[in-house]
Amino acid sequence: MPLINYGKKRDELWFIENLHGNAEYAVKVNKVLTEEESPFQHLQIFDTARLGKILVLDGIVQTSSVLEFSAPYGEMLAHVPLISHPNPQRGLIIGGGDYEIAREVFKHLSVEHLDLVDIDRRVGELTLEHMSEFTGGAEKDSRLHVHSEDGAEFVKNVPNNHYDFVLIDSTDPGGPSTPLFNARFIRNVYRILKPGGIVARQVGSLQFQPDEAPSNFRCIQSIFGEASLYISSIPIYWGGLFGFVIAVKSGALAQNLDFSEIKSRFEARNLDTIYYSPEIHQAAFLLPPYIKKRLETVYGCELIMEIEGCDLDITDAEERCKEFVERLCEKINMKRFGGFQYYNFGHAKSKTSGPSFVQLIETSSIVGHVSNYWDGTLYLDLFTCKDFDPQVAVDFAREFFGARVAFSVFLERGSVRNSARKKLHVLGEFCSERKNG
Amino acid sequence: MPLINYGKKRDELWFIENLHGNAEYAVKVNKVLTEEESPFQHLQIFDTARLGKILVLDGIVQTSSVLEFSAPYGEMLAHVPLISHPNPQRGLIIGGGDYEIAREVFKHLSVEHLDLVDIDRRVGELTLEHMSEFTGGAEKDSRLHVHSEDGAEFVKNVPNNHYDFVLIDSTDPGGPSTPLFNARFIRNVYRILKPGGIVARQVGSLQFQPDEAPSNFRCIQSIFGEASLYISSIPIYWGGLFGFVIAVKSGALAQNLDFSEIKSRFEARNLDTIYYSPEIHQAAFLLPPYIKKRLETVYGCELIMEIEGCDLDITDAEERCKEFVERLCEKINMKRFGGFQYYNFGHAKSKTSGPSFVQLIETSSIVGHVSNYWDGTLYLDLFTCKDFDPQVAVDFAREFFGARVAFSVFLERGSVRNSARKKLHVLGEFCSERKNG
Repeated sequence: MPLINYGKKRDELWFIENLHGNAEYAVKVNKVLTEEESPFQHLQIFDTARLGKILVLDGIVQTSSVLEFSAPYGEMLAHVPLISHPNPQRGLIIGGGDYEIAREVFKHLSVEHLDLVDIDRRVGELTLEHMSEFTGGAEKDSRLHVHSEDGAEFVKNVPNNHYDFVLIDSTDPGGPSTPLFNARFIRNVYRILKPGGIVARQVGSLQFQPDEAPSNFRCIQSIFGEASLYISSIPIYWGGLFGFVIAVKSGALAQNLDFSEIKSRFEARNLDTIYYSPEIHQAAFLLPPYIKKRLETVYGCELIMEIEGCDLDITDAEERCKEFVERLCEKINMKRFGGFQYYNFGHAKSKTSGPSFVQLIETSSIVGHVSNYWDGTLYLDLFTCKDFDPQVAVDFAREFFGARVAFSVFLERGSVRNSARKKLHVLGEFCSERKNG
Repeated sequence: MPLINYGKKRDELWFIENLHGNAEYAVKVNKVLTEEESPFQHLQIFDTARLGKILVLDGIVQTSSVLEFSAPYGEMLAHVPLISHPNPQRGLIIGGGDYEIAREVFKHLSVEHLDLVDIDRRVGELTLEHMSEFTGGAEKDSRLHVHSEDGAEFVKNVPNNHYDFVLIDSTDPGGPSTPLFNARFIRNVYRILKPGGIVARQVGSLQFQPDEAPSNFRCIQSIFGEASLYISSIPIYWGGLFGFVIAVKSGALAQNLDFSEIKSRFEARNLDTIYYSPEIHQAAFLLPPYIKKRLETVYGCELIMEIEGCDLDITDAEERCKEFVERLCEKINMKRFGGFQYYNFGHAKSKTSGPSFVQLIETSSIVGHVSNYWDGTLYLDLFTCKDFDPQVAVDFAREFFGARVAFSVFLERGSVRNSARKKLHVLGEFCSERKNG
C-alpha cells in the first residue's frame, strides 16, 4: 500500500490520498510520526506542512490536530444531534477511537455516560502518543467507557431503549467499517435508542461518493420512518460538501427544531466551539436542489427492451448470444460475474418456444428470453446499479441481432413504491429502428 | 400412445383425443382401418359411429370423410384466401397430405400450378387407400406437384415472389410441424409470395389453445405488416371457435375486401361449396370482443417487486432464498428449470452490497437482487409466459421475507412498443403491508 510517495523532488516525502479513484490529493509530509499495521487496518500519523498532524487509516485521512481543519467534521457530528436532543444523558459513539467526537460530546454537561466502541484500540493509543493535544482530555473523563470491539456486535447486546444518542463516526464503507453500513446494524441502533433518541452518521462526499448519502439516508429513513441530511465542507477531506444523516426515534424531525430553541439550548449548555453555531446548525439542513433531488433515491435502473425481428441464426446460437452479452458489457462498461448461461428450454408452444439466457453482472444481471415464433423477438432485461447510456444499449442490441426495431423503457428501481401509488415512474423511452435501403 | 381405449363396455372400442389436457373427447370406433408408425408420426384411420372415417395423426383428429364435419376447416382455409386474391394462379400447400385443401383449391380454375409439400407421404397413401372418396380426385389433377419433404426446408429453396398463395395446413405445434411455427418459416413464406400474394394458416382453438391465435397472428402481422384473424367452428375439433390467420404481401388487408367483390368473385368462379359462402366469408372476420382484445397480444408478464424491510437472516441465507423460490413456484404453479443460483458478489458500497439469485422457470425466470444496506430491500423480477395471480406472489414474498412492505407493478411484455409510444402499459399495481400488533 504505497501510502507515502516520493513527490517531484526525490528528497521530499508526500502523502497521497486516492480514496476517490482517478482523483488524488497530496500533502507534503514533514515527518512520519508513526506507521503500523493493526489486525484491522493500516495506521499512520504524519506531521504535514499543510494539515498539521493527520491520522490516516488505510490510506484515508481521518482527522487533523488543527481544529480549523477537523472541527467542521467533529463538531457537526456531535453538536447537531446533541443540540437536537433536549437532555442528552447516555450516549454511544461507534468508531471515534481518536476521541474527537467524545471531546465534543463531553462539552454537553448533561451527558452522564458515554460508551465509545472502536474495533481498533491502536487508533486511540497512537492518537494519545502522537496527538495528545487533540483529545481534550476526553480519554481521562470518568464518564467515558471505552470498548475495543466491533460496533456492529456491540449493539446487538445492548438492551432496548438504552441511549439518548448514537453517533456513528466510522471510516468509509469497506474494511472494518463494512458491517456499520448494513441495515442490521441500523435496526439495532434504532432498537437501543430511547424514544426521542437521536442517531447521526457521516455519509461521505456528496460529489465524489454520490451513492453514499442517498443510500445511508434511505436506510435510516426507512428504519426510523423519517431522516434528514445535513452538510458541511471539511478541509481535510477532498470532495466538496460532506453529508451527515440524522434521525430521531419516534419524534419530530431534527431539522424541524425551531431556531430559537437551537439558540437557547446552545446558550444554556454554554458550548465552546470554533465552527458550530446555531446559525450553522440551521443552515446545514439547507440542501442544494440537486442534492435534495438525489435523496429521492433509487437503487439502480432496469432497461426493459423488446427487440423485434431478430436474426434467428443469432438468437438460436449460444455462442452469438454470449458474444452479444460480452460486447454489450464492454460497450456500457459492465463487469460480468460468473459464466454465461444459455438454455433452449421453451415448450413447443407458439408463445414460449425459444432460448433464454442469463448473465450476472456486477452487481446485477442481464436476462434474455427469445420468442422464435413472434417474428424473433428478444425480451431483454438489463438491471444494474451502475450508470450507463440506455440508448447505446438499445442501439447495440438492435444492430447485433440484425433486428428491425427495438423498443424499450427505462425504469428506476427503488421507486416502485411511488409507482404503485401513482403511475409507474418511467425515466426514459428509447427506440431504435433499422434503416432500410 | 394409448390412442384407442376400451370404453365403459369392454367389448367396445373408443378413440379418445386428449390434445387439450384435462379435457378429452371420445368417439366410438366401428373399425380400425389402418394404424402405423411412420418415420414422422403415428397414423391411424378409424371408421367411427359419429364422425365417419377420420384421419388421426399423433392421436389428434385431422379430418373426416364426412364433408359436413370437415368442410368448415377445408373450405375456410382454401376459399377465404383464394377469393381474397383476384387471380390465384400459382400456389403452395404446406402439409395437406390428405388432399383436402388441394381438392378445394382446384375448384378455382385460375389455378395453374399447385405445389403440395407434406413431410410424410404415408398420409396421402393411407388416405387414398382408405378414404379415397374424400380427395375429390385431387391427387390425379395434372396441376398438382407433390413433394414429400419438410415444408420449412422446401420454402428455403423457392425463388422470391414465386407464389400467389401459400396455405399452411399443418398439425398443431409440436412433432413434425414444429418448424412451421417458427418465424424463419414465415419470413420465407413472405419472401416467396408475389406482391399481392396471400398466406393463410390455421391457428387452433380460440378457447382451448388461447395462445396459438395471438402468437401466430403476431408473428404473421409482424412480418407482413398487417394480418387478420377469421374464425369458424369445426365439428371434428373440440374447442369452440377455431381461428385462421390471413395476410397479404404488400396489399390491402384481406378483411377489407368489399362484400360485393367477394360475391362477384364467388359467382364468377362458380364455386361448389357446402359450407363456404360470401356471407360466411364476410362474417368470419367478425370477432367476439374478447378475441379481438386478445390479439393485442402480449408475450408474457413481468411482476416487478420491491420488498422493503426484509429479514436479513433470510436474504443472507442461500438455503432460505432457495426455499422461497421453490415455495413461490409451488404457490403460483411455475415449473423450475435447472438449479437455483445464489451469489453474494455485491461490492462493499452502500448501494450494491448484497446477494443476487436467479432461478429459471419454464419458460422464463425469477431474478432477485438484495440490498442489505437499504433496510434490506429485495428487488425481484418474475418474468413468465404463464398466467398467475400477482397478488398471491406479492403477499407470499412479503410474508416469507418478514418484510414490512412490498410494492410491485405488473407489466405486459410484448407491449413495450406501445409503451414507448405512449406511457408504459401497467396492468396492475399491488401492495402488501405487514400488519403490526
